[in-house]
Amino acid sequence: MQRFLSYELSAHVGETVRLAGWVHRRRMLKDVAFLILRDASGVAQIVVDPSRRASLDATPEETPISVTGRVVENPVAPGGVEMVEPEIVALSDPAAPPPFDLYRPRVGAGLPTVLDHAPVALRHPRLAAAHRIGAAAVAGFRAALDSRSFVEIFTPKIVGTATESGANVFRLDYFGRPAYLAQSPQFYKQMMVGVFERVYEVGRVFRAEPSDTGRHLAEYTSLDAEMGFVADHHEVMAACRDAVAGMLDAVWDRAPRQCELLGIERPALPADVPVVHFTDVLSMIAAQTSHDVHRATDLSPADERFIGDWARREHGSDFVFVDGYPTAHRAFYTHPDPDRPGYSRGFDLIFRGLELVSGAQRLHRYDDYVAVLAERGETDLTAYAGYLDVMRHGMPPHGGFAFGWERFLARLTGAGNVREVALFPRDVHRVAP
Amino acid sequence: MQRFLSYELSAHVGETVRLAGWVHRRRMLKDVAFLILRDASGVAQIVVDPSRRASLDATPEETPISVTGRVVENPVAPGGVEMVEPEIVALSDPAAPPPFDLYRPRVGAGLPTVLDHAPVALRHPRLAAAHRIGAAAVAGFRAALDSRSFVEIFTPKIVGTATESGANVFRLDYFGRPAYLAQSPQFYKQMMVGVFERVYEVGRVFRAEPSDTGRHLAEYTSLDAEMGFVADHHEVMAACRDAVAGMLDAVWDRAPRQCELLGIERPALPADVPVVHFTDVLSMIAAQTSHDVHRATDLSPADERFIGDWARREHGSDFVFVDGYPTAHRAFYTHPDPDRPGYSRGFDLIFRGLELVSGAQRLHRYDDYVAVLAERGETDLTAYAGYLDVMRHGMPPHGGFAFGWERFLARLTGAGNVREVALFPRDVHRVAP
Repeated sequence: MQRFLSYELSAHVGETVRLAGWVHRRRMLKDVAFLILRDASGVAQIVVDPSRRASLDATPEETPISVTGRVVENPVAPGGVEMVEPEIVALSDPAAPPPFDLYRPRVGAGLPTVLDHAPVALRHPRLAAAHRIGAAAVAGFRAALDSRSFVEIFTPKIVGTATESGANVFRLDYFGRPAYLAQSPQFYKQMMVGVFERVYEVGRVFRAEPSDTGRHLAEYTSLDAEMGFVADHHEVMAACRDAVAGMLDAVWDRAPRQCELLGIERPALPADVPVVHFTDVLSMIAAQTSHDVHRATDLSPADERFIGDWARREHGSDFVFVDGYPTAHRAFYTHPDPDRPGYSRGFDLIFRGLELVSGAQRLHRYDDYVAVLAERGETDLTAYAGYLDVMRHGMPPHGGFAFGWERFLARLTGAGNVREVALFPRDVHRVAP
Repeated sequence: MQRFLSYELSAHVGETVRLAGWVHRRRMLKDVAFLILRDASGVAQIVVDPSRRASLDATPEETPISVTGRVVENPVAPGGVEMVEPEIVALSDPAAPPPFDLYRPRVGAGLPTVLDHAPVALRHPRLAAAHRIGAAAVAGFRAALDSRSFVEIFTPKIVGTATESGANVFRLDYFGRPAYLAQSPQFYKQMMVGVFERVYEVGRVFRAEPSDTGRHLAEYTSLDAEMGFVADHHEVMAACRDAVAGMLDAVWDRAPRQCELLGIERPALPADVPVVHFTDVLSMIAAQTSHDVHRATDLSPADERFIGDWARREHGSDFVFVDGYPTAHRAFYTHPDPDRPGYSRGFDLIFRGLELVSGAQRLHRYDDYVAVLAERGETDLTAYAGYLDVMRHGMPPHGGFAFGWERFLARLTGAGNVREVALFPRDVHRVAP
């Protein structure tokens, strides 16, 4: 018999249909027993006759079952319907009890327990909801960029040289030679601007980050984009804003019930996200506090919260761009601001007071790369050979941005620790499950 | 002034517009000079007055330029239009000559040269076309599965234990401890069936494959799917067929010009792809040849070609499923065929005579896993702990499939070596660029 999903039940009142899913909960009342079945679409209530209550002992919580029964209306049941006179068939052996009750509204365990038992814990509707929202967000990122003629690329994660911040790179044995795990697709996406003008990648990146904070993972999913023939970084920021808008649209389009379950308020993202120059952020802070910010080369977490609050208060926006970060403290490929020596065309997008995205216009002339690498003390350029070669073979002005999917998801769902929304997180202490 | 793309030019005859792109080719004729500009959408012809020919010396092939000029009709120019009276502005320094001429219809270099210079070589329209087709194929895979309620997942690539075929696994230094690169998302996608019922992942996988063949890479993009509550592997095969159909639809929908450029004939994929049991393939071969196939435990490449030819000849199909492979020679998690001892519910999808997809119904009972691992001599089950735990906590009958994106792309485009279509391939000899 054809299987239906629980959310379809209300369209089949009076019919005998088949459901399949997991035993979410058994409720043994005095005169009746309820079996709550959970499937991919939600839950359904199944009424078990008191005379057959004992049969429920064979299907404890989390046992996968197939149930055939008649659908009747019941205003107080989920979806206004329930199934009666069920024939229950177990689809596997009786399940062992989960590490904590999956049927309670809230997760009744601390983060370490949840992570240790992630494969089963993720079945909790609240945890599963975050990952449905995450999948929707990525789909929205791609859709926004696809519609703007970006081409998706898949670049290697094993690289022969450790170029960016070599300290935090994972080293592996590559057929007897050393190789490294890519910390970002930065060089590859720039190279591919020479092929497609506009490219994006959704892929894993790896950071041997020894610090154990709520913001860092050793492995995460990076959303990367890069575009050519730009006038300056403002075009890149516009594309970044549109990518984030696509993500939010897709989340509320594809996962509205999950947003409701988690009580997520849709972030305000104006068509024109406010843009504040780095130096103006410092001046605003100096005007309001006694902090000495004159020598600052970056924004502290408190500074980011300050400007985030300002954007919310003054512009009703949950997002604010800060541009013009000091060139010396951004990656070597960052394009300087020709009108403002010492400052760059690099930007961050702050989401509810936390840095979400980093981006910039990049250098595109070979000679500029050689000069800036020399300035930074890089005398052996062989590690940059393929990358620099591309600059010699004709690259247009270009720029791009990148951000961590898990960090976006944490900020959106209000998770304080990025591990709450990472799927099987990896950090200095954890490499399983 | 707003930039237009070359393909938009024919809608602007009589107007003065701006293009931007790379100098694809300069053609110096006796009375006139042509500059062919290449952008993301194609090429445009720009007519340069003989008196200004010398100015073209400053913009050799591959130099990025911006060109403003008047659009006029010319039936023999690309798209029926060309640009005259151009003002040409270089957007970078004059480009160094590429490793081979990118403007010739065919790539004029061998594969090693192409791969050594991939960042620039990929600009050749034929090489770029393959990657646009590849991006379209992945979009189609996702769309087909999204529409069937599969949820996209992103699982870790650094794993704590080497479980599947440990010999070909890359080992890395993980904060002073050993860890490994995932050879597939197999365990994770099965675990996530317990959460979402249906999941897919597009991600990199890593194989320390020492053999240097045209079919193997050390790192590639794997298209993986897994689904729960199946009756048997035929439901999995139907989903697999639909995923491939989605890929072909998307390729011809999103990249028709690229298919035309590469002369790709659209593969025939019937609604009902022929399915042949492993033993029947052997019988057919035995009946037609003198090969001793009675003891075969797998199909050889010649066998795959045989059954591929048969499917084409007898069913007009470029695809054929072979199912029922001997259980002992498939992965341990493969579900046996209860009606046919020794044979499994594992299948392959053969595409034009080459194995493309492997899939199966999986075991779903904890006791079955313990038994099969013991049979195969695995006595220490700690490496499988999280995976086996999920089976104990209630898993429905499920199955899935996986295949390499690069292998699909090679077979589709007729590339004899998977490196021709891999983006920056990795193999035993190559880890750069």
